[in-house]
Amino acid sequence: MTKVDPWADIQGKVDYDKLIKDFGTEKIDQKLMQRLEQHAKHKGLGLHHFLRRGIFFSHRDMKWILDEYEKGNKFYLYTGRGPSGDVHLGHLVPWMFTKWLQDVFDVELWFQMTDDEKFLFKADLSLEEANRLAYENALDVLAVGFDPKKTKIFVDTDYAATLYPLAIQIAKRLNFTTTKAVFGFSGETNVGAIFYTSMQSVPCILPSVLAKRNIPCLIPYAIDQDAHFRITRDILPKLGYYKPAAIHCRFLPPLTGPGKMSTTGSSKDSTIFVTDDAKTIRKKVMRWAFSGGKDTVEEHRKHGGNTDVDMAFQWLTYFEPDDEKLAYIKRQYESGELLSGELKQILVDTIVPIIDEHQKRREAARKVLPQVLLKDRRHS
Amino acid sequence: MTKVDPWADIQGKVDYDKLIKDFGTEKIDQKLMQRLEQHAKHKGLGLHHFLRRGIFFSHRDMKWILDEYEKGNKFYLYTGRGPSGDVHLGHLVPWMFTKWLQDVFDVELWFQMTDDEKFLFKADLSLEEANRLAYENALDVLAVGFDPKKTKIFVDTDYAATLYPLAIQIAKRLNFTTTKAVFGFSGETNVGAIFYTSMQSVPCILPSVLAKRNIPCLIPYAIDQDAHFRITRDILPKLGYYKPAAIHCRFLPPLTGPGKMSTTGSSKDSTIFVTDDAKTIRKKVMRWAFSGGKDTVEEHRKHGGNTDVDMAFQWLTYFEPDDEKLAYIKRQYESGELLSGELKQILVDTIVPIIDEHQKRREAARKVLPQVLLKDRRHS
Repeated sequence: MTKVDPWADIQGKVDYDKLIKDFGTEKIDQKLMQRLEQHAKHKGLGLHHFLRRGIFFSHRDMKWILDEYEKGNKFYLYTGRGPSGDVHLGHLVPWMFTKWLQDVFDVELWFQMTDDEKFLFKADLSLEEANRLAYENALDVLAVGFDPKKTKIFVDTDYAATLYPLAIQIAKRLNFTTTKAVFGFSGETNVGAIFYTSMQSVPCILPSVLAKRNIPCLIPYAIDQDAHFRITRDILPKLGYYKPAAIHCRFLPPLTGPGKMSTTGSSKDSTIFVTDDAKTIRKKVMRWAFSGGKDTVEEHRKHGGNTDVDMAFQWLTYFEPDDEKLAYIKRQYESGELLSGELKQILVDTIVPIIDEHQKRREAARKVLPQVLLKDRRHS
Repeated sequence: MTKVDPWADIQGKVDYDKLIKDFGTEKIDQKLMQRLEQHAKHKGLGLHHFLRRGIFFSHRDMKWILDEYEKGNKFYLYTGRGPSGDVHLGHLVPWMFTKWLQDVFDVELWFQMTDDEKFLFKADLSLEEANRLAYENALDVLAVGFDPKKTKIFVDTDYAATLYPLAIQIAKRLNFTTTKAVFGFSGETNVGAIFYTSMQSVPCILPSVLAKRNIPCLIPYAIDQDAHFRITRDILPKLGYYKPAAIHCRFLPPLTGPGKMSTTGSSKDSTIFVTDDAKTIRKKVMRWAFSGGKDTVEEHRKHGGNTDVDMAFQWLTYFEPDDEKLAYIKRQYESGELLSGELKQILVDTIVPIIDEHQKRREAARKVLPQVLLKDRRHS
């Protein structure tokens, strides 16, 4: 299996159970799901299908987060985005879930745009461009539907008078050998990249620093980011803060097969961006979605398709929230009644409205963005 | 010889000619001094005694700085201070010279207070304390007499929205192996310390960035800081900026003998702070100043004292600007006419007024400081 870290181009099947073991996280079990469902019910919502289907599959300290919440000690949500290009459907997965958490628990979201990270880790990306993309991508974040009254978005290099003094508090507790072990850094790694994880740790303490009291922090993220927060969890108690809790999702696999979608790596052409139009989406799905169907219509009708490997079906598990509808599609496809092209069309019909809606809300977000931005004012 | 780097506790005789060779700098020669003297004359000033006496002894690209200046392309001065305690007389040496350069060339001074550095490199120093000391020390900088209209002072952690985005531009070009070679870092070094030199490089480009044109930069500093700027000089041309020029001084040796004064190292007790009163100064000089005199008055009268090793005399070469007076004292001491205690008293009588004056100007500086401070405004 490919190494799963924040900067790897992940190809091939990911063994998520093994990641739970390797990273020392806990599987989300039935009991935890029931507890989350109870909270959702209070707001007239159901358990999110990402939980029902194991797309969010792992966590750290979720039980503690709920214990505290039930005692009246609210947590806040923190997640982020490394702005290196347009947002794709895979990015929406943790954000959609984060919105559900915000709806269910009525909590603040602190959203970090790591233009510094992308600049430092991508040889050809200028800081100017990374910064521009940060503000573009921020519109996509808001388009997911977060409550503007409870959401704060900040771009690292424009909020550094606030972030840097806290980052060095963390950096002082972290040595090169540890970053080498956790991230695989070498002597060739640039010193900004080596320092960077300290910046990603800051939102785990920033609201507590500003409020002058410890507030529990819950971070929803795709599991590849875990390395950062393993470090953070190690350091924060030494500084007198809570360890951040976490809830982890799988990657949305590329249309072409298992792995992690990427805008620069192996799955670039087949990636569906939230800026794509219906025609482009249809073309990409039809052309690239790996089919679990049989070679001929006759064979398919006889033996049926394999939903385990069919990427159109796999994507529907992410984007079709209705369990019954999904089960029906599964039966139809496995029985051979539904052909591969028809299944792909169902996927297109499912994601096009999601992206349509996203694009509309994205335009509306231009007005909202200034209200939710945290930005230091430069003297000069 | 002890290693001469920014964080070493330097004890014993420093071989400055060897540093010129090791660091690849140039000795300040007669020709360069004559050129500087010409410029000083235009302002009704003489050549600074730090130059006449080889206390400022080495440089990089000073000829280029003067060439550009003579063509009408003014440089700016950049120097700084790591605020880890009270300012001592040794710190004043490069600042006094920097003031002379400002007077002679009528140029801006950008002064960096590196509270982040001191916090990251000193295990027991809190950032809060380093930051507090930065503003205390800034008063001492102004007390040296810089022109407030042409002076800008900034504290790293309060100016990071401006500094950090530029620091990562430099950091991206610098890898761990280089910092290891230049500073002797290891796997145990914290990631903030590894990153830090990028912050110290920023003032070498900041005025150019703000002015949107390349402005030559001249950095006066004690030679132990050279490692930082060797790195900076390597990187800046790759980013389209001039290499910063430099002019280097020797350390003011501790009263106890050769080396570098330190507020925490071996020479702590004998260090004379600019906050000391006359009585304390007298006590420290009398008690600690290593004497080049003979064991008995009789022997001393007969053979005279050794000015080469006598620290009271050595200090007078820094703080008695009058060459004739200094030569007279030297003759008197070497002839045995002047006793060691009397020589020490001359030193006390020389530095007490300097420190008195400093303390007065330091109080007056409280009003000036807000006008010269560059400080980003935090959103939160």
